[in-house]
Amino acid sequence: MEFSSKLLENAVYEMSQLPGIGKRTALRLVLHLLRQPEAQTEHLTLALGQLRKEIKFCKKCHSISDVEICDICSNPSREKELVCVVEDIRDVMAIESTGQYRGLYHVLGGKISPLDGIGPQDLKISSLVEKVKSGEIKELIFALSATMEGDTTNFYIYRQLEGLEVKISTIARGIGVNDELEYADEVTLGRSIMNRIPFENALKNS
Amino acid sequence: MEFSSKLLENAVYEMSQLPGIGKRTALRLVLHLLRQPEAQTEHLTLALGQLRKEIKFCKKCHSISDVEICDICSNPSREKELVCVVEDIRDVMAIESTGQYRGLYHVLGGKISPLDGIGPQDLKISSLVEKVKSGEIKELIFALSATMEGDTTNFYIYRQLEGLEVKISTIARGIGVNDELEYADEVTLGRSIMNRIPFENALKNS
Repeated sequence: MEFSSKLLENAVYEMSQLPGIGKRTALRLVLHLLRQPEAQTEHLTLALGQLRKEIKFCKKCHSISDVEICDICSNPSREKELVCVVEDIRDVMAIESTGQYRGLYHVLGGKISPLDGIGPQDLKISSLVEKVKSGEIKELIFALSATMEGDTTNFYIYRQLEGLEVKISTIARGIGVNDELEYADEVTLGRSIMNRIPFENALKNS
Repeated sequence: MEFSSKLLENAVYEMSQLPGIGKRTALRLVLHLLRQPEAQTEHLTLALGQLRKEIKFCKKCHSISDVEICDICSNPSREKELVCVVEDIRDVMAIESTGQYRGLYHVLGGKISPLDGIGPQDLKISSLVEKVKSGEIKELIFALSATMEGDTTNFYIYRQLEGLEVKISTIARGIGVNDELEYADEVTLGRSIMNRIPFENALKNS
């Protein structure tokens, strides 16, 4: 791509550094900004700059927060002995939106992934182990994705906690509530049969 | 989507104002920036801010440029009597990349589109008419997209130029050079038969 303007080329280059945004999309986005009032670009750059400079991570759960201790961790009505281990803040938001969970979270900040150069020391694992050691947690719920990396991370944490008194569970995998069996993948369907639950329990939850 | 951080919510909102970027994608992009060094966000916001504030449009062809008269318009080796009428700078870049065109451009900045509230007065049409009236242009090539809006815009300009001495042509529409006939749409294939060219001409161009 040949640009007639260095300013344009530079903006397109920086935009195309974002994941999933190629040069063509970047050019489309940048030209869109040029057609909009100058205020829109100002608001965008200000919001991104402020976020990156002023963002805090909750000292307890490591989730993104505007304050030192996030709203969830500082909420007295949440169950402090129940902690759900997730990868990032998107998982927290997804679980919060169900309205079904009243415990706390622990945000690891990623999964162990040797291919991407992410080892256990890059994640917030030691602070989780400390929390468990201090005895404040009764149950941990693993809610990482069911990929090789997710399973590896679960297992690594599990090994770190061996011998400590804490119940460890993992979220149920199975057929989605509104999904048809015939369209489910074999692994999910298989797990969903292996991990079947008493019908009376299902009645209670529905 | 419920956010635990106003800073995050604001950044996601501004990002999702870009076309084709929904809230989920915006969140993914913003979280990516948070994981990268602070410099990346700085470079992005600086590049966008500078572009929006300092961008110039060439006084002759209205294309994006860092200077008053763009490189193409000020290039003495381009044919000044031949002007290609395009919608925006992406079309200029596409035609330039062919290396086949040695004339100048005129960037309209859009197409006439009543549905989007874009009328002739929103486009750089009057300056094109002035250029033709001044007698400096021998041939205009319409290279707008072959949509209803593109055709309307072509026809509007054509009417404005009635009685003036200028040759008006439009780029050839037909089957792509490497495309198979069986996969071509009927309209394109039909046009490509109606507008067939002498075989000797095709030989010369290949």
